[in-house]
Amino acid sequence: MTTRIWTAALAVIGDEILSGRTQDKNIAQIATWLNVQGIRLAEVRVVADKTEAIVEAVNTLRARNDYLFTTGGIGPTHDDITVNAIAEALGVPVVFHPQALAMLDAYYASRGGLNEPRKRMARVPEGADLIENRMSGAPGIHVGNIFIMAGVPHITAGMLDALTGTLEGGLPVLSRTIGCWVAESEVADLLRSAEKNHDGVSIGSYPFFREGRVGANFVVRATDAALADTCITDLTAALEEVGRPVVAGGI
Amino acid sequence: MTTRIWTAALAVIGDEILSGRTQDKNIAQIATWLNVQGIRLAEVRVVADKTEAIVEAVNTLRARNDYLFTTGGIGPTHDDITVNAIAEALGVPVVFHPQALAMLDAYYASRGGLNEPRKRMARVPEGADLIENRMSGAPGIHVGNIFIMAGVPHITAGMLDALTGTLEGGLPVLSRTIGCWVAESEVADLLRSAEKNHDGVSIGSYPFFREGRVGANFVVRATDAALADTCITDLTAALEEVGRPVVAGGI
Repeated sequence: MTTRIWTAALAVIGDEILSGRTQDKNIAQIATWLNVQGIRLAEVRVVADKTEAIVEAVNTLRARNDYLFTTGGIGPTHDDITVNAIAEALGVPVVFHPQALAMLDAYYASRGGLNEPRKRMARVPEGADLIENRMSGAPGIHVGNIFIMAGVPHITAGMLDALTGTLEGGLPVLSRTIGCWVAESEVADLLRSAEKNHDGVSIGSYPFFREGRVGANFVVRATDAALADTCITDLTAALEEVGRPVVAGGI
Repeated sequence: MTTRIWTAALAVIGDEILSGRTQDKNIAQIATWLNVQGIRLAEVRVVADKTEAIVEAVNTLRARNDYLFTTGGIGPTHDDITVNAIAEALGVPVVFHPQALAMLDAYYASRGGLNEPRKRMARVPEGADLIENRMSGAPGIHVGNIFIMAGVPHITAGMLDALTGTLEGGLPVLSRTIGCWVAESEVADLLRSAEKNHDGVSIGSYPFFREGRVGANFVVRATDAALADTCITDLTAALEEVGRPVVAGGI
């Protein structure tokens, strides 16, 4: 049986990430959420607040993935150019979304009213619908296979929550982890064999240095739980055979 | 006077980032370090442990930036394919670097000796030289305009330290920050004017919600310190004129 693999890409939009000012948290957050939806994050690009950079990334990534997520650049200020750039990438005009206007109007009724900059957040590429924002006023935007999300991680989280279960995906990728107080370079052949002997798994090796000792966590990934379990069992036995007891779940 | 702008790209290589298992820290770390060298991080791609994905990213990014940094995939295990993929991108063979072999031999002399997986870490694209690793045995690699670094952030940090001051760059981008307890949507026009009135600055607006109130930090970036200072002074005055006192240095 071959299973269709569903992939997504992510474009993180923002000078604040490229300047080092802000530590990105959306890559890990969206990757983890996608796994649960049965969708794999296949590639990420971080691009500047520049139209041509956004257009290039959006057009490449949406063409070769089932879904494209973007984060950042949908606020009310001059540096928020994501909507315009994505409309340009799609070759459609930017229009006001009536429902977004109504939502913003309600949200700002008790917060000083809906001025021009705030109205900007109701602008969408023509043909878009909205992603509910459970944290603040301005909604996310869904157009074609593109999901345009906020940059602030807790607002992104609320939008992901609103999308949960609505995207078609395949089998989730499961992972099983074991840890071992060993230099990965001592057991590299053994890891390579374990991956080769279990078709359909991939094994990642993640070394660390802790409490004055070297160790590594080995992560077995597969869509088939039984296959992942068998691989972990065999890898555990192989490590213990060379005198390296493992810690289930990782160190 | 126009100043040449030096740019770098970063390719973060690793399934562990795309799966959400590991929170990337190298983007912010390398961005910050590059700023000090007078080099701007212009774009980042996160790619899977797949040869074709790495080759595509490396060839695109090295062609349109002064420098390309990569992180990840230079360890001893089967999933460490960065060196082979970059050699393929460059169209050169992979060779053992004698000095790297000697360094690894010395490092592993008291750690069980230099086995085949460990020797893998002395492999480089032909024509490369080494980047000192001040934290552990395996060096980084410099070939053409590419700097191949470790994935583990503290090892990357040691390699960056070894490179400090060795790369040609331009004027560092300086930043000045002020904070204000205001919704950015209330002062969006004022920010736009401040940027327009000071040619050569860019202003980023970074909203937050804290202690039950909304606020924002405004970051003025420029290569000219006097220009950044003037812009901050004018922006501060404009905000205070509309009854919004600012906090120097940000909130």
